[in-house]
Amino acid sequence: MTTTSESPAAPPRPAASPDGRPPDHTLVYRFGAGAADGSAGMGDLLGGKGAGLAEMSALGIPVPPGFTITTEVCADYYARGLSYPPGLEEQVAAGIEHIESIAGTRFGDEAGPLLLSVRSGARVSMPGMMDTVLNLGLNDETVEGLARASGDERFAFDSYRRFVQMYASVVLGVRRASEEAPEPFEALLAAMKRRRGVELDTALTAGDLRDLVAQYKAAVHEQSGRAFPDDPAEQLWGAIAAVFASWNSPRARVYRDLHGYPSEWGTAVTVQAMVFGNLGDDCATGVCFTRDPATGVRGLVGEFLANAQGEDVVAGVRTPQKIGAAERAPLGGPTLEETMPEALSELAAAAGRLEDHFRDMQDIEFTIQQGRLWILQTRNAKRSGYAMVASAVEMVDEGLIDEQEAIRRQDPERLGELLHQVFRPGAPREVIARGLAASPGAAVGRAVFTPAAAVEAHARGEAAILVRDETSPEDIEGMSSAAGILTARGGTTSHAAVVARGMGTPCVSGCSALQIDFRRDRFAVPDGDGSLLEVRAGDVISLDGSTGEVMRGAVALADASFPPEYERLMSWVNERRRLGVRANADTPEDASRARAFGAEGIGLCRTEHMFFGEDRILAVREMILAEDEEARRAALDRILPMQRGDFVGILRAMDGYPVTIRLLDPPLHEFLPRAGREQEELARALGRPPEAIARRVDALREFNPMLGHRGVRLAITYPEIYETQVRAIIEAACELDAEGVDVHPEIMIPLVSTEAELAVLRERVVRVAEQTMERAGRRVDVTVGTMIELPRACLVADLIAEHADFFSFGTNDLTQTAFGLSRDDAGRFLPTYLEAGVLSRDPFVEIDTVGVGGLVKLGIERGRSAKPDLKVGICGEHGGNPPSVAFCHDAGLDYVSCSPYRVPIALLAAAQAAVASAPA
Amino acid sequence: MTTTSESPAAPPRPAASPDGRPPDHTLVYRFGAGAADGSAGMGDLLGGKGAGLAEMSALGIPVPPGFTITTEVCADYYARGLSYPPGLEEQVAAGIEHIESIAGTRFGDEAGPLLLSVRSGARVSMPGMMDTVLNLGLNDETVEGLARASGDERFAFDSYRRFVQMYASVVLGVRRASEEAPEPFEALLAAMKRRRGVELDTALTAGDLRDLVAQYKAAVHEQSGRAFPDDPAEQLWGAIAAVFASWNSPRARVYRDLHGYPSEWGTAVTVQAMVFGNLGDDCATGVCFTRDPATGVRGLVGEFLANAQGEDVVAGVRTPQKIGAAERAPLGGPTLEETMPEALSELAAAAGRLEDHFRDMQDIEFTIQQGRLWILQTRNAKRSGYAMVASAVEMVDEGLIDEQEAIRRQDPERLGELLHQVFRPGAPREVIARGLAASPGAAVGRAVFTPAAAVEAHARGEAAILVRDETSPEDIEGMSSAAGILTARGGTTSHAAVVARGMGTPCVSGCSALQIDFRRDRFAVPDGDGSLLEVRAGDVISLDGSTGEVMRGAVALADASFPPEYERLMSWVNERRRLGVRANADTPEDASRARAFGAEGIGLCRTEHMFFGEDRILAVREMILAEDEEARRAALDRILPMQRGDFVGILRAMDGYPVTIRLLDPPLHEFLPRAGREQEELARALGRPPEAIARRVDALREFNPMLGHRGVRLAITYPEIYETQVRAIIEAACELDAEGVDVHPEIMIPLVSTEAELAVLRERVVRVAEQTMERAGRRVDVTVGTMIELPRACLVADLIAEHADFFSFGTNDLTQTAFGLSRDDAGRFLPTYLEAGVLSRDPFVEIDTVGVGGLVKLGIERGRSAKPDLKVGICGEHGGNPPSVAFCHDAGLDYVSCSPYRVPIALLAAAQAAVASAPA
Repeated sequence: MTTTSESPAAPPRPAASPDGRPPDHTLVYRFGAGAADGSAGMGDLLGGKGAGLAEMSALGIPVPPGFTITTEVCADYYARGLSYPPGLEEQVAAGIEHIESIAGTRFGDEAGPLLLSVRSGARVSMPGMMDTVLNLGLNDETVEGLARASGDERFAFDSYRRFVQMYASVVLGVRRASEEAPEPFEALLAAMKRRRGVELDTALTAGDLRDLVAQYKAAVHEQSGRAFPDDPAEQLWGAIAAVFASWNSPRARVYRDLHGYPSEWGTAVTVQAMVFGNLGDDCATGVCFTRDPATGVRGLVGEFLANAQGEDVVAGVRTPQKIGAAERAPLGGPTLEETMPEALSELAAAAGRLEDHFRDMQDIEFTIQQGRLWILQTRNAKRSGYAMVASAVEMVDEGLIDEQEAIRRQDPERLGELLHQVFRPGAPREVIARGLAASPGAAVGRAVFTPAAAVEAHARGEAAILVRDETSPEDIEGMSSAAGILTARGGTTSHAAVVARGMGTPCVSGCSALQIDFRRDRFAVPDGDGSLLEVRAGDVISLDGSTGEVMRGAVALADASFPPEYERLMSWVNERRRLGVRANADTPEDASRARAFGAEGIGLCRTEHMFFGEDRILAVREMILAEDEEARRAALDRILPMQRGDFVGILRAMDGYPVTIRLLDPPLHEFLPRAGREQEELARALGRPPEAIARRVDALREFNPMLGHRGVRLAITYPEIYETQVRAIIEAACELDAEGVDVHPEIMIPLVSTEAELAVLRERVVRVAEQTMERAGRRVDVTVGTMIELPRACLVADLIAEHADFFSFGTNDLTQTAFGLSRDDAGRFLPTYLEAGVLSRDPFVEIDTVGVGGLVKLGIERGRSAKPDLKVGICGEHGGNPPSVAFCHDAGLDYVSCSPYRVPIALLAAAQAAVASAPA
Repeated sequence: MTTTSESPAAPPRPAASPDGRPPDHTLVYRFGAGAADGSAGMGDLLGGKGAGLAEMSALGIPVPPGFTITTEVCADYYARGLSYPPGLEEQVAAGIEHIESIAGTRFGDEAGPLLLSVRSGARVSMPGMMDTVLNLGLNDETVEGLARASGDERFAFDSYRRFVQMYASVVLGVRRASEEAPEPFEALLAAMKRRRGVELDTALTAGDLRDLVAQYKAAVHEQSGRAFPDDPAEQLWGAIAAVFASWNSPRARVYRDLHGYPSEWGTAVTVQAMVFGNLGDDCATGVCFTRDPATGVRGLVGEFLANAQGEDVVAGVRTPQKIGAAERAPLGGPTLEETMPEALSELAAAAGRLEDHFRDMQDIEFTIQQGRLWILQTRNAKRSGYAMVASAVEMVDEGLIDEQEAIRRQDPERLGELLHQVFRPGAPREVIARGLAASPGAAVGRAVFTPAAAVEAHARGEAAILVRDETSPEDIEGMSSAAGILTARGGTTSHAAVVARGMGTPCVSGCSALQIDFRRDRFAVPDGDGSLLEVRAGDVISLDGSTGEVMRGAVALADASFPPEYERLMSWVNERRRLGVRANADTPEDASRARAFGAEGIGLCRTEHMFFGEDRILAVREMILAEDEEARRAALDRILPMQRGDFVGILRAMDGYPVTIRLLDPPLHEFLPRAGREQEELARALGRPPEAIARRVDALREFNPMLGHRGVRLAITYPEIYETQVRAIIEAACELDAEGVDVHPEIMIPLVSTEAELAVLRERVVRVAEQTMERAGRRVDVTVGTMIELPRACLVADLIAEHADFFSFGTNDLTQTAFGLSRDDAGRFLPTYLEAGVLSRDPFVEIDTVGVGGLVKLGIERGRSAKPDLKVGICGEHGGNPPSVAFCHDAGLDYVSCSPYRVPIALLAAAQAAVASAPA
């Protein structure tokens, strides 16, 4: 181990080569004070983090100074058998001097030390690699300097305690190894709290913490056999070695193997000055956005805490202050504009430069240390769907980006927010409290006070509003089950707010008027008269996530609101996309809604949903329980006019557009009652003995219904069912045709696995259709096609295509059969799979492009080899999932079909896919 | 319509061209009297039947004379808009003269007419085409001649009645067309029987039948609007036109479309003289084999009925006489050798020529009409498995065929007969009756008297012997459910005998001592003392299908017997096959048996079968019901030594061969009791509340267990199960290695669909294996591979192969998932599918080469692209199915694995595939 103090002075830095990269022997790239050796394009050499910091610094953004040891050093380090290349010590020492010269403090200075952070940084972020070590440089001497500088001895020793623990764990490897050798620090902390008779860490004094540091170090010595290094330089070199070692941790290696990343890539090490927002009243820390993340309106908005650390803002424990006067809801204290106008104008300048440079709305973390602004991080801001659309169109108008970029920049999932409900304008609201507008949208539901209660309410089909002081990651399931989230603490970047926006769930945060009593499951807010108004678990409340208002009772809901810019964005979208977008809709209402959202037809109309209608389920059951074909036909004859009515409504709603109607798909037992009591009722209704019903239900029961007697198989054994459905479709079409409605029914046969099935069915469908049209004395445009939803159908798609006018890939069932994975049962192990990384995503949500997608491609290729003009679509849930839509574009499908609410999302995703694949 | 009597004399027939085919304008090819215009190679022109008759006639075989109108005439007939080409009339007339000159009778002669049969005959046999019309030429005058010639007026008029009905139906189209227009003949027949007060057709007199003919003809006139044609020539041309018309029947067209046969092929028409075996005591009809179909021993054997028609022999109504004295069991009367020695020697000569020509055992139908022998048909004889092996090896020794042909000629399925049980030699037998040895093998079971009872017994898992007077096609299911079949009537070519041999089911037929009382479900046989011995339903009897003996009680069974020639055949087989053959075996006993049958290892050892053992199921259940990993491990620790013991036994039995062990596959709920009572018992045994058991059973229940939480998915969620199994395997292997046993365990992970699953499992398996070997202080040869049984696995086989030493295709599950077809539920509609021809065969029996096979090929190709030396096998049921084995050979698999009893079948099928694909 060597230290910088022993190393000679750094050699003069050679000039950069023409491509901006210093000559080969440059091992360390510096940044800070408005300059940098590296740049954004050097991610392979500096890692993602190092390159980003270089970029910002070169832009003149005041980032805390630092330097990055290149990934090549890591590779070289391994090639040399774990020793550093010559020159590294000198260049690191020069890097430290570079930091010191900018920060104005010295590394290891007992008076007021320079503290450092050390981070790993590969080309891509990778689990298993070393986390950050913060506050490196603290020892028994420098901690006193920090205490003096901050005027907060407790803070200094708490930082020291945390540093020792973190360093011991990630650098010295002192951690829980087995049952017999537990990690010592938590136990020591707990013992200290016991001795002091306190429950919370925060109740320990500076003295307690000082004692703990000594105990921690003793434990480190005992477990690692070495004294904790007090020399800051030794600390630094230890951390560098630990970063390099973490590149070859078992977990990182497995991850690299799985993703095919070569081990030669190596990791960079970024060393950067720590800055502190808690060294006095001229200090602060905060986050800001270059535009309003809720509305997209241009102008700096954000929150800060004076004399505080960054964690305090994110944790949402203290309610933060606002940055500027322009912002809507007054918060905890004076604004930054009022308290530090100079720092604010510096911040505004930096923010403007960053937005111009990245040409997107930025989310910026900053710290002000003794009046000096430091930008810690910037990234493209998360924003509401409303803001996403509005700001992108506005940026096109500002000339910042072009239309293609506006499309590319949309997160299609966020459009969902625009499609969800808002309150009816002018509807009466009894506002009982106001908080932050943390996630837009309107929510009405019963108040619940635990995530578990939210989950239970969701399971019962009830809307719930989850009320909490603040939220944390373990609350995720409850949050996703809730219709809305209300927190007493935390800002618009608190956990609750960030997560709720991600989920598109309305959220009001930082509603400090709430007095929550968790033991009794209720909260109180002061009413106007000085008394308290109580809301108990189960009471209905309403949240407006776009205004921050909390209302008693259910406020009337209206349809979703779109920003005025939406229409322009969608016109660009529709100009550019190649894929058609249809909707899955089983009712005239759904069909009309889908059409309003931009659907160009129906890709999947499930006729079985119609069978469940209260007015017809009895006839359906009678049909299923019929002893022979005649009785079955009699029951079907009663169903026919009702089905015809359904089709009239749907075809009319889609006037001028195609409507793909899937004939009956589920196994018949799905329509029969399972419970004995219901079976008895049915027996009474049909005038049959209950045993007969029970027997039939029993006889129809299947071991694996998903792979059972359903789809085309029903049609082969009971031809009359499909015959009736075809008659209903054609009669409806002829009736509308007579009215002048432009109808295009497409009859779809499900679950085909052999060409013979479709050949037989096509012949029957065409025959019945011809007979029906003859009787009606009209001809309508009707085609016959099939779902491709079984692997075998993909394999023999060329043979099947001979009998099909179109294919519609049913990727739900195709995923089930390709993986051998029952959607209904996968819940038992899919979470474990996702957690363990065995699957990177749920294949029912996002299409598995390699396996299931491979089958789809095979099916298209073979189908079109037999019939080049075969129309091909997709009608599984994947049709509304953006990455899956991109797959469909690339695979050459003609259209996707998805639920009505996802139509705009699919339209946008289709345009993004077209833009992505357009020649540059 | 034109008749031959009006046509001019036939032109002299031109000489045949050099290739044996007459010049182009030849439309009619004659055969008979030891000569023929055509030959066997002319199937395209003469149809299969016509070419076969020409071949036989040219060989000097006395076939009834006739002629064939070529398929080209049919095509020409359609091309000309349904009119005959010039010259056809003349050539048909010449053909009739040719027949008359050989038969010595004249077409339409009232004194003793020449009657004709007319048949369609395309290149391939095809449903929907015209059946035979027999006895064409009968009218009110010629029938009297037939009556005189046969001395049997009733026979003549019954023939006439049948002719009118048949001709009316197939030529004139008088048949049941709809509810309103029933086919008239059955009604008239029924009315006549009512009037006469009789139940059976045979009770009607010649006069009754004469009246019926008149009624039939009147009905024909009424329904068709035309008189029934009395002119024999008009009858003939009508039949020819009907054959041509049937080529374009809807059913034939659909069949052609499905099989891709062009409509230009056309059909031939074969017209042939009728011969009669019932014109007096110098007449007979029968069937014979050139070798004994039960044993393969050379020499004519067969049966005949004097003064009878062919149907009488096949129907098994009269018990036939034997052909030669050499035959074993004396039958109904004197032998042919005794009654017609000259005809017999002619028959023997013809049989010899046929066997030499076709170089295979022949099954010959013959009729002797007034002392003159006619051969009606010959075909390769169906034979027992024993005879098949014995005769083929003998024919090689005779120089008739070569070894490859001997292999090619085996029906691998029949080998099964050799593998089934026979009675232990010397075991005591209480023989109560003797019949014909109709199908070899030994059967022991409870007597049942209806096919339904046989089915029920089978469902209960009981062996049943089906006892019947005779059998008919609707008894098939009962026959296939029976362990053995015993009939009171019928010969060795009766329905019961033929079907039983086809199924490999032991059968004793023609046991005339049986007096069956079907009303009381029992039979009686005379015992030695003149009294009767009774056997009731449920009593156990034994059948020896190789000797014809029927025994009371259960005779002790021994292992199957092989003909002495078997070893030589299998040595040829093993020289030629490329595919390895392994067995699926879960016990040391099965492993030893498989090895004795020729297995070269185990391809699938299912460890779950071991879990069901009575001594361990409790520990298994405890493991499943464990609340945490620790309790699960404790239960697994108790299972470990038992599993180790299993593996010791199996690996020892396969000393020197690989043993593929599949780790636990089924979902855990399969091991738990379903019934409440059993759950309570389990609760008591485990000292747990019954509700806890019920809750867990309920929690584990799945909607689609086939697609559920099983296979590798169990291992991802409960790693300790596979870890225990791997330990047991490696401990067993090390223990045996120490003893000097040569062990090659191959550890197989089931239900893999992603490479990550296998990567994770391989790492774990290897780790545990290494630890176990380290503890044991030995190293054994162990590999790790995976089942490929999901479509996705085939698609990503290249990625999976990176982590696999071998692939074993699980085509059972692959068939289920590729088709989306649950094996447990498919019974509801698969029969309809097979019946309707939507599927040509059950894909669980014979691999679906296009779909499932396509996935297998994809899997092999991609797997080997990543790892060229990847070992690839198959372990589904298909591994023992000969066409599937051929597929595996062609697809380039390394081995197949099947149940022990099917190993010889797979070996043979593998050799056949190699022979078939060997360069000629």
